[in-house]
Order: sequence, then C-alpha cells, then structure tokens
Amino acid sequence: MLLNVLTCAHSLLKESLQEGDIAIDATCGNGHDTLFLSQAVGNSGKVYGFDIQAQAIQKTNEKLQENDCHNVSLIQDSHEKISTYMKEVILGGAIFNLGYLPQSDKSIITKAPSTITAIQAILEKLKPNGRLILVIYYGHPGGEEEKEAILAYTSQLDQKEYQVLRYQFINQQNQAPFLIAIEKKKRS
Amino acid sequence: MLLNVLTCAHSLLKESLQEGDIAIDATCGNGHDTLFLSQAVGNSGKVYGFDIQAQAIQKTNEKLQENDCHNVSLIQDSHEKISTYMKEVILGGAIFNLGYLPQSDKSIITKAPSTITAIQAILEKLKPNGRLILVIYYGHPGGEEEKEAILAYTSQLDQKEYQVLRYQFINQQNQAPFLIAIEKKKRS
Repeated sequence: MLLNVLTCAHSLLKESLQEGDIAIDATCGNGHDTLFLSQAVGNSGKVYGFDIQAQAIQKTNEKLQENDCHNVSLIQDSHEKISTYMKEVILGGAIFNLGYLPQSDKSIITKAPSTITAIQAILEKLKPNGRLILVIYYGHPGGEEEKEAILAYTSQLDQKEYQVLRYQFINQQNQAPFLIAIEKKKRS
Repeated sequence: MLLNVLTCAHSLLKESLQEGDIAIDATCGNGHDTLFLSQAVGNSGKVYGFDIQAQAIQKTNEKLQENDCHNVSLIQDSHEKISTYMKEVILGGAIFNLGYLPQSDKSIITKAPSTITAIQAILEKLKPNGRLILVIYYGHPGGEEEKEAILAYTSQLDQKEYQVLRYQFINQQNQAPFLIAIEKKKRS
C-alpha cells in the first residue's frame, strides 16, 4: 500500500530526527504527534508542544503521562510566538496539523498569517536536512483559504535553501488532508 | 534527502514488483526505466517496452545488451495499442515518461488521448497492489495540456478501486517533472 498521509508524515520525520534532537509539535491537538516526537528524540531530546486550547494541552498531557514521556514542555499559546519561547536553539524537526481540534469547536481554526509566522520561525532554526511537516486539513470553513495561502507561501521558498514536497492523494472525496514536507538543504 | 521524483518512481515500483512479474515500459526513451524493470522482474519475469521512435528502441536495445538482459520485448509502436499486443496478461507494474525523447525531435511528444488509452488498458490488467507510475514532464509546447488532461483523468478514478498519489516538488523553477502513482486496490 502507498503510505497514507499521516504515516508518511511520521516516516519523513523519523528519517531526519535523531536521538537528542529538539522538536516542535506546533499543534498538539489530541497529542498523537507530540507523543511520536517525544519517542523519536528520546530521553536526551526535548519536545515543545504548542496549542492555544486548554483542552488540547490537557489531552496531550494525559497521553504523555500514560506513555511515561517526560521530555516534553507543553505551552498553551499560539505557535505564532514560538520565537519568544525559544531563542538560540537548533531544531531537528517540526509538525503542524492545520485545521481545527477534532471533537471540538470547529470555529477555532489555524489561520494562514499565524501559521506562516510560525513556519518562518521554525525554518530559521531548522538543522540542515531537518524537516518541517504540514498536514493540511481544509474541508472546514476557512480551510480552503488557509490551504491556498500555505501553498503560495511554500511554493516560493528558495529552491537553493529548501526542498518543498507536496504529497497528496488526488482522487479522494471529502477534501482529504494532504502533506507538505519542507526540508532544509545542507549549506554547500 | 527527500527522494527525488525519478528515485521515488523506481522505489514505488520496486516495492510492488516481484520476480516473475510482467511489466511495461510504455515509453522506452533512452532505456533507463526498461533496464530497471528488466532487473526488477528477473529472468523469470518479462518486460514489454514500447516506443514509437526507432532511435529510442535502438538505444534501449543497446542498453539491455550491455547489461546482459534478455527478458525484454521491444515494440516500435504506440503504447495506445498495448491491448493488441497483450491480451490475457496480469501486469505487475508499468511506467510512463510523458513528454519528448531527450536529445531528439521535441515535436514528437506524448499526447493525452493516446496516453489515457494506454493507462486504461494497463489499469485493467494490473494485479492487486500493482502500480502504474507516470513521470510527467510538461515544460515543452503541448506539455501543459497533457498534464492537465492526465490530472483530470486520474483525479476521477474511483477511490474504491485505486489510490492516486501526486508527488511533486512545488518550489522548483523550470516546470520540473512530477510523479503520479496509481495503485490498484485489493478487492475486498
């Protein structure tokens, strides 16, 4: 089977993350990706998880406790402010799930301006060969607009500095989520 | 590094092809993919290579001879006629390079109607979990038109029967080629 979008997201991160890396889950949601990152970077690594909703932080915290993960700092704030929480770090990788928190208020959604601010902050701090993964849900009100803005922004990233891959199943109904992977190139 | 389009094409075929399979190179070109398929299916397998241009058939033949490959039939005809050359076969996989033959007459190009006829013929014969790979070059006159037609056709393939993946680097200049992979689902 071709890798589905969520499996591909984790596979691409796993290939580039190393034990001891610092990683960011920019949208904790139900904590699925936070847990994955925590296990990928190991006890010597560190994960910062951002979400603006208390419910997401709480769910993520429960999931981490259940799995005995102690290398994560959860921050209830917008990923837009990543740079105020971490200055001189080199990031191994990061992931965003764009859209709304499942089983929650669908009016609270990620939006292009703050998403792009966060992407820029992360790209600046990313290690060579590090990857930033965007899983883009866009079937909700406001989703199409964010999707188009993210595609426009990522499409113009300098190909000398970044590879930007779009991985999408194109014959699915219901606006299935798709993936954009940004890899920072090694400086020559 | 993220897999480039050509490496990804071979990787996706290699995952699904088995020794003894029958495979098709629908556009032999310089023989690069034909050789790959020949080696992937092994001595007990069989490859059919199509190209309308004598130059392509000759180059491919030379490449196969150099590599001591004897499991390939080269057919100088349009891939549109695949069904007249093979009736009751089950195909392990197939690949197309859409565009023109490198270092040759740029006016001789693949075109959507015959490409789609060939895709349909192959999909009907494809084994469950078998893959058809399209590497789409579209920077030449006529390329954009074929690209749009192929995207429209593959996007409407029934998701109960096929997965259709688009794998594309979206921040590259010069209309870099991209990949569409079609996988036939197992019947439930």
